[in-house]
Amino acid sequence: MKASQFFISTLKEAPTDAEVASHKLMMRAGMIKRLGAGIYNYMPMGLRVIRKVEAIIREEMNRAGAVELLMPVVQPAELWQETGRFEAMGPELMRVKDRHGRDFVIQPTSEEVITDIARQELRSYKQLPKNFYHIQTKFRDERRPRFGLMRGREFTMKDAYSFDRDVESGTRSYQAMYDAYCRIFDRMGLQYRAVAADSGAIGGDVSQEFQVIAETGEDAIVYCPTSDFAANIEKAEAVGLIAQRAAATQAMTKTPTPGKSTCADVAELLSLPLAQTVKSLVLATDELNDKGEIVKSVVWLLLLRGDHDLNEVKTSKVEGLKNGFRFATVGEIEDHFGTKPGYLGPIGLKKPVKVIADRTVANMSDFVCGANEADFHLTGVNWGRDLPEPDAVADIRNIVAGDPSPDGKGVLAIQRGIEVGHVFLLGTKYSEPMKATFLDENGKPQPMVMGCYGIGVTRILGAAIEQNHDERGIIWPNGIAPFTVVICPIGYDRSADVKAAADSLYAELMAAGVDVLLDDRGERPGAMLADWELVGVPHRVVLGDRGLKEGHVEYQGRRDTEASKMALAEVAAHLRAQLAA
Amino acid sequence: MKASQFFISTLKEAPTDAEVASHKLMMRAGMIKRLGAGIYNYMPMGLRVIRKVEAIIREEMNRAGAVELLMPVVQPAELWQETGRFEAMGPELMRVKDRHGRDFVIQPTSEEVITDIARQELRSYKQLPKNFYHIQTKFRDERRPRFGLMRGREFTMKDAYSFDRDVESGTRSYQAMYDAYCRIFDRMGLQYRAVAADSGAIGGDVSQEFQVIAETGEDAIVYCPTSDFAANIEKAEAVGLIAQRAAATQAMTKTPTPGKSTCADVAELLSLPLAQTVKSLVLATDELNDKGEIVKSVVWLLLLRGDHDLNEVKTSKVEGLKNGFRFATVGEIEDHFGTKPGYLGPIGLKKPVKVIADRTVANMSDFVCGANEADFHLTGVNWGRDLPEPDAVADIRNIVAGDPSPDGKGVLAIQRGIEVGHVFLLGTKYSEPMKATFLDENGKPQPMVMGCYGIGVTRILGAAIEQNHDERGIIWPNGIAPFTVVICPIGYDRSADVKAAADSLYAELMAAGVDVLLDDRGERPGAMLADWELVGVPHRVVLGDRGLKEGHVEYQGRRDTEASKMALAEVAAHLRAQLAA
Repeated sequence: MKASQFFISTLKEAPTDAEVASHKLMMRAGMIKRLGAGIYNYMPMGLRVIRKVEAIIREEMNRAGAVELLMPVVQPAELWQETGRFEAMGPELMRVKDRHGRDFVIQPTSEEVITDIARQELRSYKQLPKNFYHIQTKFRDERRPRFGLMRGREFTMKDAYSFDRDVESGTRSYQAMYDAYCRIFDRMGLQYRAVAADSGAIGGDVSQEFQVIAETGEDAIVYCPTSDFAANIEKAEAVGLIAQRAAATQAMTKTPTPGKSTCADVAELLSLPLAQTVKSLVLATDELNDKGEIVKSVVWLLLLRGDHDLNEVKTSKVEGLKNGFRFATVGEIEDHFGTKPGYLGPIGLKKPVKVIADRTVANMSDFVCGANEADFHLTGVNWGRDLPEPDAVADIRNIVAGDPSPDGKGVLAIQRGIEVGHVFLLGTKYSEPMKATFLDENGKPQPMVMGCYGIGVTRILGAAIEQNHDERGIIWPNGIAPFTVVICPIGYDRSADVKAAADSLYAELMAAGVDVLLDDRGERPGAMLADWELVGVPHRVVLGDRGLKEGHVEYQGRRDTEASKMALAEVAAHLRAQLAA
Repeated sequence: MKASQFFISTLKEAPTDAEVASHKLMMRAGMIKRLGAGIYNYMPMGLRVIRKVEAIIREEMNRAGAVELLMPVVQPAELWQETGRFEAMGPELMRVKDRHGRDFVIQPTSEEVITDIARQELRSYKQLPKNFYHIQTKFRDERRPRFGLMRGREFTMKDAYSFDRDVESGTRSYQAMYDAYCRIFDRMGLQYRAVAADSGAIGGDVSQEFQVIAETGEDAIVYCPTSDFAANIEKAEAVGLIAQRAAATQAMTKTPTPGKSTCADVAELLSLPLAQTVKSLVLATDELNDKGEIVKSVVWLLLLRGDHDLNEVKTSKVEGLKNGFRFATVGEIEDHFGTKPGYLGPIGLKKPVKVIADRTVANMSDFVCGANEADFHLTGVNWGRDLPEPDAVADIRNIVAGDPSPDGKGVLAIQRGIEVGHVFLLGTKYSEPMKATFLDENGKPQPMVMGCYGIGVTRILGAAIEQNHDERGIIWPNGIAPFTVVICPIGYDRSADVKAAADSLYAELMAAGVDVLLDDRGERPGAMLADWELVGVPHRVVLGDRGLKEGHVEYQGRRDTEASKMALAEVAAHLRAQLAA
């Protein structure tokens, strides 16, 4: 490609609404252009990257035996009503009526439609297993779209769906997709981690996320450097940090802590370690009648060690909290504890409260907690002696770095990640309600075991940039760069020697199948080189009159600190070696 | 590709709602699957054709210097309000609100968005000309979606938009697209005709349609076999058939024609040629006040020769009818003509009526028309003597086969066509209201001259099949077949010789880059061959034990009436020759 036949539009400054590096750099590099909140035009430079990402995905999906089809963007509501997601998905699901007033959705994902296809097309065990995928425009009406392509409303997703006769076969299909995803992200040159994940709204039994490692990631990933344990922090099990409860050594004492409403402040005031304090969080659950009115509420007290944080996903798996919970109102708190938040504790309650202790708290002794009286805490508190055992003990906290790994093989570390892929073994969550059955060898209908497998095509661009950029711009991995090589001739329009050398190198690389761009725009050298550092082309060759007279051109990899001189005749071979590496 | 790794699903019978051949055959061949009215899943077999169509379009667009980008499916209403099309487009435009109640449209086309991009990105004459295109999902909420992919609601369109500094340059961009379209449809192996067209709702000065010739086409195409004149019947000029008005030879006579309310019946009754009769059509135009209420209506009488039909597109270009017209009500007709339809004519009106004569009618003499009295016509009617000259003479009729070509170079013929492409020189229709200007050499802002260029990607599948099928199924042209060659081994799972021969031919063709499918499903021979005739793979090789023992396999082109025997070793060369042809 010659630059004059392409469209290049770079900006000195990013728009003020761009918050993260990838968003700023994609805007500055002219890869995307905002059309509305969370809706972007993919400009020619950005589209080239998308197409490369799609091509890698397509090749590896096909290699793994998946078959490509294409399901519509606008889907009839009926199928979504069959699974209940038409209502359940809330405002994220974009709903639209046609001219006849019939309901449709703009697809955010395609479980319903593919299951509808499968229940019509896959009738016999002989047709199984089968894996269908498509790469299609999706729309999710995010409450707060942000970070450019990282959390847009309209985006491109590859979603695949496997259909198997049983869980054993389904697990093989799942593993084949897991392996394909590893190949895909390897080929894209991304540093990533596959982590155990919570299945969330999609449902299912087993799921793993593919997280691109980046400091700016929205997700926290827990991993054990000395074993293969890795999980999203939402999912990662936190073991109890105290193996056995120690005997009480202190008497329970009411201690004035005026104005000290946090565990950290109390620990500092009392010169105690933060790990000696217990924090109280108050939740509530509601019982509704047929009309959806609250008929009864239950208040819950959750106890965490002062240096720990609540994990809401794990909390939602505690018996009694599975159907949803909310934080209690100040009124409910005063009603049950007799005081305001900041001095709450499990002792001296006004009304019955369900007490859930985190695993670590359950084994603490001589601990500090609120006295249920403003400006007072209790010290030397001990389970059994000062208060009854909790109603339940559960893992309700987030992992912190340094916690023991649940597999017993080391100590956990935490890093940030950007979720770019997610594989789910769904089981029969969709095939049961939608009656997607096949006939087994005995002619008996059986529900198909499904898996679903997503890759955020457009989000990959954001994630790759978050992981690979510097102060000058983007640094694309070879596999997904908009162009692999850029030839920058200094004085292309002035020097016949430069033009001849640039043209000949361009022709040579094109003939070798290298995705090369020749910058024939006639820009000033500084602006030209800055453009390509911003755009992030991984390999650059600069040719100028002076160098050519001395018999050399300059090669520089985008991560190299300086250029290497080499003979024009050697450049192509050098580039091929770089690209093969 | 091996069939066992693909998804093949053929049907003996087409669903009853499929009306035309292409719809029936695509359903039966498992290429598409209905999801809702005018909304289809593109199944793996159909998607392969779509991808081949897209690839040809992309290559030729790039060759023509157009640059690909991708604009969103969901577009903010603001831009559509700038051009007035948010209201003007009516119910075909699918409108949707997001969670904040903001208006969006599901794009039916992208003039607004690309003009928004151009007005921000193209600021100087130095950046022009530029041509951007995308291949994207579109939605038009058709009142009556039908014929499968021919008139769907969700479909894929390639739309390109050119931006030029003036009409001269814009015309060059237009011509470049015209030429690219010819290459595209040539490569697809379609018989087509480029015809002058009416610009319709898109607007603009010049436009041509690319029509795939097919008897079932919705459009009538007028062409001159002895010149290059070709136009959509909506647009094709009908010259007056009578060069000069002859002198009157008959007296005007009121003649009883009881129950004969059509020109054909009257001509038969009176033993006169139909070309001696004149038919009367009554239209009305309304003048509205600010509230949209009718304050005044004008009645129009349109006179056509008895054997001619009204052309509404041409009629809408007559002075006074440009802002819309309707057929008059029976009440209005009785009020102005004193009688019911069937016996209307221009003589003896009760109230003033605007009279428009078609060019041919204006030069008729001694003609027959209604007497404005039930069961009576007038014969021997002559302009000037019996009635005043018409208020206007205009071309308001459809061409009929045998009419002289407007270029004077022959006689016109008519054939049916399916519109698959349309090129428009838009001028400044969008750039003026959206203020898409560039700075010329003098630093003065000038509106960009635009062109737009569409190809109905998914409709091409329907059109290609309408043009290329027989009683056994589809006959794909080589360039867009889902597979170019199918190898059908008889007894692949039983005979080691057959398997070895089939595998070796498959490997040889794959290595040669031929898009070949090996049918390894183990179907019965009859069902297997019927499947591939239905799907329409253009080249087939059948291998069986008996033939292999005799040293031959059977090759058959999809249009061939019988198979040719040839040595296994010769097949690949034979196929390459067929594909190169």
